[in-house]
Amino acid sequence: MIEADFLVYHAGQLVTLKGPPGPRRGPISPSSLSILPDGAMAARAGRIVWTGPTDSAAREVGLLPSAAEQDAGGRVVTPGWVDSHTHPVFHGTRQEEFAMRAAGADYEEIAGAGGGILNSVRRTRLATSDQLESTMLLHASNMLRFGTTTLEAKSGYGLDLDSELRSLEAIASVSRSSSQTILATFMGAHEVPEEYRGRPDAAADYLAYLVDTVLPVVKERGLARFVDIFCEKGVFSPEQSRWFLERASAMGFELRMHADEFHDSGGAALAAELGALSADHLLCVSNAGIRALASSATVATLLPGTAFFLGKPYPPARELLDAGAAVALATDFNPGSCFCESMPFMVSLAVCQVGMTIEEALVAATVNGAAALGVADTKGSLEPGKDADFVIWNLDDYRSIAYHLAVPDVEAVYTSAQQAVPRASGRASGDPKTGA
Amino acid sequence: MIEADFLVYHAGQLVTLKGPPGPRRGPISPSSLSILPDGAMAARAGRIVWTGPTDSAAREVGLLPSAAEQDAGGRVVTPGWVDSHTHPVFHGTRQEEFAMRAAGADYEEIAGAGGGILNSVRRTRLATSDQLESTMLLHASNMLRFGTTTLEAKSGYGLDLDSELRSLEAIASVSRSSSQTILATFMGAHEVPEEYRGRPDAAADYLAYLVDTVLPVVKERGLARFVDIFCEKGVFSPEQSRWFLERASAMGFELRMHADEFHDSGGAALAAELGALSADHLLCVSNAGIRALASSATVATLLPGTAFFLGKPYPPARELLDAGAAVALATDFNPGSCFCESMPFMVSLAVCQVGMTIEEALVAATVNGAAALGVADTKGSLEPGKDADFVIWNLDDYRSIAYHLAVPDVEAVYTSAQQAVPRASGRASGDPKTGA
Repeated sequence: MIEADFLVYHAGQLVTLKGPPGPRRGPISPSSLSILPDGAMAARAGRIVWTGPTDSAAREVGLLPSAAEQDAGGRVVTPGWVDSHTHPVFHGTRQEEFAMRAAGADYEEIAGAGGGILNSVRRTRLATSDQLESTMLLHASNMLRFGTTTLEAKSGYGLDLDSELRSLEAIASVSRSSSQTILATFMGAHEVPEEYRGRPDAAADYLAYLVDTVLPVVKERGLARFVDIFCEKGVFSPEQSRWFLERASAMGFELRMHADEFHDSGGAALAAELGALSADHLLCVSNAGIRALASSATVATLLPGTAFFLGKPYPPARELLDAGAAVALATDFNPGSCFCESMPFMVSLAVCQVGMTIEEALVAATVNGAAALGVADTKGSLEPGKDADFVIWNLDDYRSIAYHLAVPDVEAVYTSAQQAVPRASGRASGDPKTGA
Repeated sequence: MIEADFLVYHAGQLVTLKGPPGPRRGPISPSSLSILPDGAMAARAGRIVWTGPTDSAAREVGLLPSAAEQDAGGRVVTPGWVDSHTHPVFHGTRQEEFAMRAAGADYEEIAGAGGGILNSVRRTRLATSDQLESTMLLHASNMLRFGTTTLEAKSGYGLDLDSELRSLEAIASVSRSSSQTILATFMGAHEVPEEYRGRPDAAADYLAYLVDTVLPVVKERGLARFVDIFCEKGVFSPEQSRWFLERASAMGFELRMHADEFHDSGGAALAAELGALSADHLLCVSNAGIRALASSATVATLLPGTAFFLGKPYPPARELLDAGAAVALATDFNPGSCFCESMPFMVSLAVCQVGMTIEEALVAATVNGAAALGVADTKGSLEPGKDADFVIWNLDDYRSIAYHLAVPDVEAVYTSAQQAVPRASGRASGDPKTGA
C-alpha cells in the first residue's frame, strides 16, 4: 500500500502526460497525453505518489487519517499550466499605446516615440515596492484563475540597480505568499535605459554596468535563477547578447533569450550554441535557426499572444515541430505587447491560428514549459515524484479546453504548496485555490 | 426632479454612447462614445430616466422610497453587449471536428464527410426539449457572465417542423426566465436536411416545405421575430434565398441573412435590396456588396470569431467602415465554427486583428448590434428612454476592455428586467446578476 494524504478520483480523463524525462519532441498524438479514463491520483505532502484507475485506488492507496479526498465527478483533470515567459512586474498599464496601434501606429514606431518598454520603465522607477508587489500579485492571481500553477517572472522594467532589485524582490515576496511556483528571471537587458542613450556605445556600456554592478548583487541575494536578454535589431546585437550571456552563465545563472522576434538576427542559433534553456518569440526565425534548435536541448518557446496582440505574423510552429524542435507555449504577459494572463487562450490560439494540434499545444503548455524552465523533473505532468499541481475542468473531453474559445471552464485549481501546508487532522485540504 | 427607483453613481467613465437614433456610421472617434466622467445614471422600472454628472444627481433625481443605489467606485460603466448573431440551441458539442481541423482537415471537407451542421442536426433531433433548453440556458448564462444583456438566438439545428419548433420553444422558455432580452430567429434554412438530399431540387423543395408547413406555425405561435437563411455556395443560392426571404417578409417576419461567408455570391447586395436588418459574416463580400450595404439601412454584421476559429481570412471591416456601412460585431456562438460566448473577446479580436479601432468595436458591439436587431430604440446605449442594461467593469479606462485580452474584467452585470421586478421596499435591487 502507498500512503497518501490526498486523493482525487473519478477524473473522467486524467491527462497525465506521463512520458520520458525532459521535453517532448517528434510526433505528438493523442496517445502522447497518456490519458487514464476514470483515473485517480494520490499525493503525499504535495508530491504525487500514485496514479491509476479509480477502481484500483482502494486496493493500492492507503489514506492517512488526515487525508482529504476529492471526487472529480467525471471531469477532465490536467497538470497545471507552466507559463514559462511572463513580465508581470511593472507600474501602470499601456492601453493608450494599444489604442494608438488600433488607430494605425506600429509597435516599433510607438517605442521610437518614447512609448514602449521605456514608458513602463519611467513609471516603474517611480513606483513603490508595495505597488510593484501588488501588480505582480494581481497578475499572478489572474494566471491562477486560468490554471497556471508554475510561472516564470522577469524583471526588466527598472533598468537600474535599485529598481531591478525591487522588481525581483516583488517577485520573491509574491512567490513566498503564493501557492504557485514562481521562478525569477533577471532581465535588466530588456532595453537600453534613457540615461545611456546618446553614448556611442550605449548598449555595450549598459550591459557592462549590468555585469559589473547589478548581476553580482542579484546573485548574492539569490533573487534570480535565470538571466534573459532582448537580442533584437535596435536593442542588443547578437555579439552583445553573447558577451552578456556568457558572463551571466559564468556567474551561475541559467540562460534564456528573446530571439528573432521582429527580425532574424541569428538569435535562435546563438541561444542553442550557448546552451540556453529556451529561445523565445521566434516570429522571424530562419531555417538555420530552426535546425539549430531542433538539434539542441534549447526549447523553442512560442508566444503567439504577442503576434495576435501586435498584428504580426505568427511564429512558424509547424516548421519547428516538424523539424523536431521541442516547442513550449507561454503568454508573454506584459503591459505593452500582450496584456493577457490566460494560458487556455494561448492553447486555443495555437490550435486555431498557429497550426498546432490540440495535443501539441497541451504538451507545449505543460511538460515543455517545465523543460524550458529546467523543472521538468517536478512540474508539467501528473506522474509519481512530481508536484501535485493540477486543474479540474468543468469538461468531459480535454479537447474542449482548446475548443471553448476565450471561455475557460476551470472548475478548481490545486497546487502542491497548498497541500504541503500542515493542516488540522480530518479537515479537507487541497481546497480549490479558486473556482471559476 | 425626476423620480427614480435606481441610481448608479461615481462611474469613473459612464460610456453612454448617446447619439442619433439608429446605427452609427461614418467617422467614429472617442467622442462618439459620449463619455461622462464621474457619471451617474437613474432608472425607473428598468428604464433609464436620467444621466449626468454624479454631483448633479442629488439635485436632479428624486429617489423613491424603495430605490436602490450603487456606487460604481470610479469604475467604467458601459451598456450591456448586444450579441446580434448566435446559434445557442443544439445538442452535443463538436470538439472532435475541431480536433480534425487542427490536424489539417478543412471545415467544408468535414461538412462534406457528414460532419458540420448535419452532425448537430442528427443529435438535436434526438434531444429532449429539456436538453435543448438546458443547452440554451447554459450558453446564455455564459454570455451574461461576459456582459451580454441582449442576444439574438437562432434555431436551425432541427430542420424539420417538430425539432425547429422545439428549438424555438427552448429559446422562448429561457427568454421568459432569463433577465436577458432574447430575440428569436427562425433559421430552418440553415442547411438542407439529409432526408432531402439526392432529390434533383433538394434545396428548393426544402425551402418550399419551410414556407408551406413550418413558417405558418412559427408565425401563428409567435415563436420568432426574424427569419434568416444561409445563402452560400452548396447550401442555398441567391435566387433561392430571395424566393424564401420574400415569402417570409410577406408573412410579417423581419429578415436577416448569412451572406458571402465562404464565397461571394452577391449575398450582401441581396440583403440590402430586400431590406434585411442585417447581412452577416461577409468574409468574402465584394466591393459591390460593400457599396450596396453602405448605401442601405442593412447593418453589416461581422463575426470575426468564426474566421479566427476556422483559420479563414478576417472580414473586410476597414473597407466596410470606410465606405460608410454600419458595422456590428457579434459572436456567432455555435458548436461548429465558433464555440465562444464572449463579446469582450470579439472586441479585442476586432481591434488586434481585424483593423477596427477600440471605439468602432464598442459601437459595433452595442448600438449597432441593437440596430441589427431592430431594437435601437431601447437597447445599445445609456440614454433616457432606453432600458437600463449595463455592465460595471473593474477598470478605470474603457480602452482596457479591449486591451485586457481574453480576460474580461466584468465586475457586475445589470439588466432592466431585474430592476423591473417588484421588490420589498427598502431592499437593495439591481443586484449584480453575476460577478467575475
